[in-house]
Amino acid sequence: MSEPLETPEPTDAPEPLHPAEPLDRSDPLGAIDAAATRFRNWGRWGADDVLGTLNFIDAAKRLEAASLVRRGTTFSLSQPFDSDGPQNGWRGRVNPIHLMTDTGLAAAAGIQGFPHGIGGADDAVFMPLQASTQWDGLGHIFDRTKAWNGRDAAQVVTNDGDQFTGIQTAAAEFMTRGVLLDVGAALGVDGQLPDGFAITAEHLEQTIQRQGSSAAVGRGDILLVRTGRLTRARREGWQDYAGGAAAGLSFHSLGWLHSHEIAAIATDTWGFEVRPNEFDDAFQPLHQVVIPNMGLYIGEMWDLDSLAEDCAADGCYEFMLVAAPIPFTKAVGSPVNPIAVK
Amino acid sequence: MSEPLETPEPTDAPEPLHPAEPLDRSDPLGAIDAAATRFRNWGRWGADDVLGTLNFIDAAKRLEAASLVRRGTTFSLSQPFDSDGPQNGWRGRVNPIHLMTDTGLAAAAGIQGFPHGIGGADDAVFMPLQASTQWDGLGHIFDRTKAWNGRDAAQVVTNDGDQFTGIQTAAAEFMTRGVLLDVGAALGVDGQLPDGFAITAEHLEQTIQRQGSSAAVGRGDILLVRTGRLTRARREGWQDYAGGAAAGLSFHSLGWLHSHEIAAIATDTWGFEVRPNEFDDAFQPLHQVVIPNMGLYIGEMWDLDSLAEDCAADGCYEFMLVAAPIPFTKAVGSPVNPIAVK
Amino acid sequence: MSEPLETPEPTDAPEPLHPAEPLDRSDPLGAIDAAATRFRNWGRWGADDVLGTLNFIDAAKRLEAASLVRRGTTFSLSQPFDSDGPQNGWRGRVNPIHLMTDTGLAAAAGIQGFPHGIGGADDAVFMPLQASTQWDGLGHIFDRTKAWNGRDAAQVVTNDGDQFTGIQTAAAEFMTRGVLLDVGAALGVDGQLPDGFAITAEHLEQTIQRQGSSAAVGRGDILLVRTGRLTRARREGWQDYAGGAAAGLSFHSLGWLHSHEIAAIATDTWGFEVRPNEFDDAFQPLHQVVIPNMGLYIGEMWDLDSLAEDCAADGCYEFMLVAAPIPFTKAVGSPVNPIAVK
Amino acid sequence: MSEPLETPEPTDAPEPLHPAEPLDRSDPLGAIDAAATRFRNWGRWGADDVLGTLNFIDAAKRLEAASLVRRGTTFSLSQPFDSDGPQNGWRGRVNPIHLMTDTGLAAAAGIQGFPHGIGGADDAVFMPLQASTQWDGLGHIFDRTKAWNGRDAAQVVTNDGDQFTGIQTAAAEFMTRGVLLDVGAALGVDGQLPDGFAITAEHLEQTIQRQGSSAAVGRGDILLVRTGRLTRARREGWQDYAGGAAAGLSFHSLGWLHSHEIAAIATDTWGFEVRPNEFDDAFQPLHQVVIPNMGLYIGEMWDLDSLAEDCAADGCYEFMLVAAPIPFTKAVGSPVNPIAVK
Repeated sequence: MSEPLETPEPTDAPEPLHPAEPLDRSDPLGAIDAAATRFRNWGRWGADDVLGTLNFIDAAKRLEAASLVRRGTTFSLSQPFDSDGPQNGWRGRVNPIHLMTDTGLAAAAGIQGFPHGIGGADDAVFMPLQASTQWDGLGHIFDRTKAWNGRDAAQVVTNDGDQFTGIQTAAAEFMTRGVLLDVGAALGVDGQLPDGFAITAEHLEQTIQRQGSSAAVGRGDILLVRTGRLTRARREGWQDYAGGAAAGLSFHSLGWLHSHEIAAIATDTWGFEVRPNEFDDAFQPLHQVVIPNMGLYIGEMWDLDSLAEDCAADGCYEFMLVAAPIPFTKAVGSPVNPIAVK
Repeated sequence: MSEPLETPEPTDAPEPLHPAEPLDRSDPLGAIDAAATRFRNWGRWGADDVLGTLNFIDAAKRLEAASLVRRGTTFSLSQPFDSDGPQNGWRGRVNPIHLMTDTGLAAAAGIQGFPHGIGGADDAVFMPLQASTQWDGLGHIFDRTKAWNGRDAAQVVTNDGDQFTGIQTAAAEFMTRGVLLDVGAALGVDGQLPDGFAITAEHLEQTIQRQGSSAAVGRGDILLVRTGRLTRARREGWQDYAGGAAAGLSFHSLGWLHSHEIAAIATDTWGFEVRPNEFDDAFQPLHQVVIPNMGLYIGEMWDLDSLAEDCAADGCYEFMLVAAPIPFTKAVGSPVNPIAVK
Repeated sequence: MSEPLETPEPTDAPEPLHPAEPLDRSDPLGAIDAAATRFRNWGRWGADDVLGTLNFIDAAKRLEAASLVRRGTTFSLSQPFDSDGPQNGWRGRVNPIHLMTDTGLAAAAGIQGFPHGIGGADDAVFMPLQASTQWDGLGHIFDRTKAWNGRDAAQVVTNDGDQFTGIQTAAAEFMTRGVLLDVGAALGVDGQLPDGFAITAEHLEQTIQRQGSSAAVGRGDILLVRTGRLTRARREGWQDYAGGAAAGLSFHSLGWLHSHEIAAIATDTWGFEVRPNEFDDAFQPLHQVVIPNMGLYIGEMWDLDSLAEDCAADGCYEFMLVAAPIPFTKAVGSPVNPIAVK
Repeated sequence: MSEPLETPEPTDAPEPLHPAEPLDRSDPLGAIDAAATRFRNWGRWGADDVLGTLNFIDAAKRLEAASLVRRGTTFSLSQPFDSDGPQNGWRGRVNPIHLMTDTGLAAAAGIQGFPHGIGGADDAVFMPLQASTQWDGLGHIFDRTKAWNGRDAAQVVTNDGDQFTGIQTAAAEFMTRGVLLDVGAALGVDGQLPDGFAITAEHLEQTIQRQGSSAAVGRGDILLVRTGRLTRARREGWQDYAGGAAAGLSFHSLGWLHSHEIAAIATDTWGFEVRPNEFDDAFQPLHQVVIPNMGLYIGEMWDLDSLAEDCAADGCYEFMLVAAPIPFTKAVGSPVNPIAVK
């Protein structure tokens, strides 16, 4: 059960990094260090905190979320968990391997040994927890050996899993207002952004403006950003969906993400942030700031297409979102089937 | 997206089997055959149907569900997915095996090969899909070689999985009103029913009466029945939680389950129905009627304890329930983290 | 323990199919039916037999094998079992996934909880049994629903595995004389046959003639045929090593394989027989004759390169071979690390 | 290929620890430190060595091994790799989980989609590498953060596996003379030692004396020690075979093991050394000396019963042994099906 505490007053929100200040492509560490210092939420919810920005969700927000259910229409935002998925083996990530341990064939053959005509089928799976639609746990990424809230990475995630911020700690949290920003539709061609398109604070604002008042983003919301990348994969095949070039959030969106006090963010891409990354020699620099420093939950490989169509049709970009991770004890990520309800 | 069709008019609900008609313990097949014939829903939603009783959930029901969110409090009804779980290897079912593929130890040791101080942890799992809190898919159980809607089991579930009713077909369905019947609290001792206690229609009605009007059960609801079995496992250890003796639904509850047109049912036990079963030589006879014949979704090993405490405290036994399975393609079951919201 | 029975007298060996009789490419089933009828060994070793051509190995053959150890040099004929392997996911076959469950990093961090300074590392694997260097078990392939010795496929291999010819039945069998026929070196360019090269009886004989008397093949031997395909994969990458075009045994080799009464055969290719297959619409027709009809064990994806170099250097193509499968109960195949000793 | 270098001259063998010098049960670390210092082989085969005592096997020893094949009888020394095995989940070690991915049922149903009547069955496994009959790799155990040859444990075994002594390095090594010391038969009751029986150098010598000259143990041999523990498990069930009390090698055997320059040792028990261990608060202290310090390969859970019967019958306790690990890249252990040939 999760009965949110009274939420502390908003801090003086820092100004967003202005994209007019270009990043020094040769100095990722400098940029990361500056941003981490500026947008760090360590201690904001106490020294023992394990929830990060999920703390922004309070009871009032949940009531607001439920009030957004106006038609009774549900949307699953999950990709199929399928052996024909995006993974290519990088870091051992393969697609889910679904294994039948008993079948209707065996039942029909009468060899299962059960009485009175009952038969059964059963199955198992081997899968990396981040094989498909997922939440990154707060123990998934470290910044210079530090995990969320300033803990030592080596003490947080051992071979026995995440000792502090395991995904099970957030089992009951992910119910709140969701907002879809369909940046692909707003700023792309045929609803899709080109690879390498870095979504800045300005792009988010432009999309909100275009979508109208239902798209306003505020404290405790889960923000869904659609780029159109999955739409293309569905049309052209997976190719390098996992790890290849893609539109995604810009390092320049950091201030905006921080000041809007969102509870979580998810995209329809493999890696949430723009790829190639915005520094010459870099690997997911935005992750390095938002997960261990801000404590922001990231969702990846979500399927936002049906929801986006519906939002475009009715002009309403807000909804109730329930996106409960499977609470694997001490896991640093989890499969999820997010349900949006309008 | 799931936009429910207009629901057909309720059929003339058959009368519940009256417990005064005792079962012939020596003739499970006779009882199953009679019950299957009486409570069969084949064709009720068309020849192509794959959703069974989930069809009872309509848009109005979903609006009603959302309207039950009054405080903004969430409850995860999932057990931890943990290697220290209830499974004992029967039918190959082991507890989830969580494997770290990268760790904070490695990140802190500086051996991950990433630039600018980013580090990461990653993990994988091997698990039977019914290892912990779960939905049985409609392809999980057969009655004399027939699967849901009268299809041949051998054609429905092959080594390649469920060709018709795979759990992915229900990815967006499980959002509706939930009702908790805490039979353990109503009729048990210290909140717990003794092993072998067979919950009949009368017991369900008595519990509703005791709990008050919020506990009324109707079309499209998901019914949660608490026996207290998990509470005991938590106190005494798993022992034979998986497959051993337990309270559970009686074969005598069949008529009630059918006539109330619930969308799904879930319990805090391993096997939903009473164990030992109510026939001399039997294996899960109630499953054999409700899954392939009624098309009723069954949830097992749910953790209803926190929710039950809260319901007892505020006297309200209804809530919004979102219980989305992970949509493994063609799976006959799925892990789930059900979220109740009051 | 395997103490071979006295071997029955050789049957009148049927004549090899002569390559001068070209196959009708449009009629695989006709050719398979004729060959199966001609080369079938059903009943040859009794109705209960589970070993097939392994019965050709007798005590004298094992003594002969041991006598071939002249220098005390060993060769592992196994590919590395590695995530960077040949598999591409076809039929769910992925490369072995090796997972560390404890590490030296954890030991060095002093977090393992063991006394007096002991530390440990541990690991696990998920793998298809035919992911890398392997034996096909006799239950791996069926001919028109029949398995080895005429048994019904449906009764032999259920979801519970191979009820008769599981690989564990051959746990102690694979110790005999090995002979390498390096057809790649004899008839290829730079030691390698072109893709699609179909190795006939004549090619085997030519290779024997070229290699000299140590290469004679006889009853109870395990025959190793090198094509050079793995050599190329090592040089150029895996590409379509699994399932793509390759040299391999011709359907025209069937008579020769049968009449020579070999105990088993193995190649350095994915699929043992030539690919594309020698019929217009076909899938591994040679398998269909040799496994269920002849009872011949097939080894695939063996690494014969170091052994081949040594044989070329000393002119001796015979050796002792011990190639023990891991005895997974009821498995239809097994990883193996074959050891040749000269 | 493994062509042994000329073996260096034997060092002056240190005297065995005499059991008359009783261990101080309260000071495991003191005893381990003294023994490690005394019996350490670091540098003995060069700074880059990865094979440890396998270096004792030379070409002459392999010729000798082959010469021991006198009858042509083979013995598999492997337990079945079976879901009904000894593991209980400790450290995540479960029994092998064998999964059929295709079956004869499916082939007989004609649903596999292959042409001309070919059908197939296929399977996969999830297993800890030390689930059943196995070799401990040299990276499996550390002594105060040091691995074999003095390397840092943290650098040797990372989440990416064993960077130096992965089991694949020994793929071609395990072919040598084997000697069975059936201590259970020599000193036990009904062929079995009582639990907690600590096998010292004296017990080994007594057994050799009793068994006769074929049982002499020398440089490069693989020593098999039978306690009878597996015989009991076969009779009484697994119970606490994995990790419970058992006979096994004594800390007092260390000097003998070192001075005899054996290549490897294996037993029919879970843990090789006596359990409970010989110190008050201890965990596998003998492992801590022999693996990282001596570089001695340990085999566990071998099935020595059939071989032992045969040796008792013919009075010959020596044989050729080929015990090839499956060469999983960078693994710290491996399943093995050891083949003894007499």
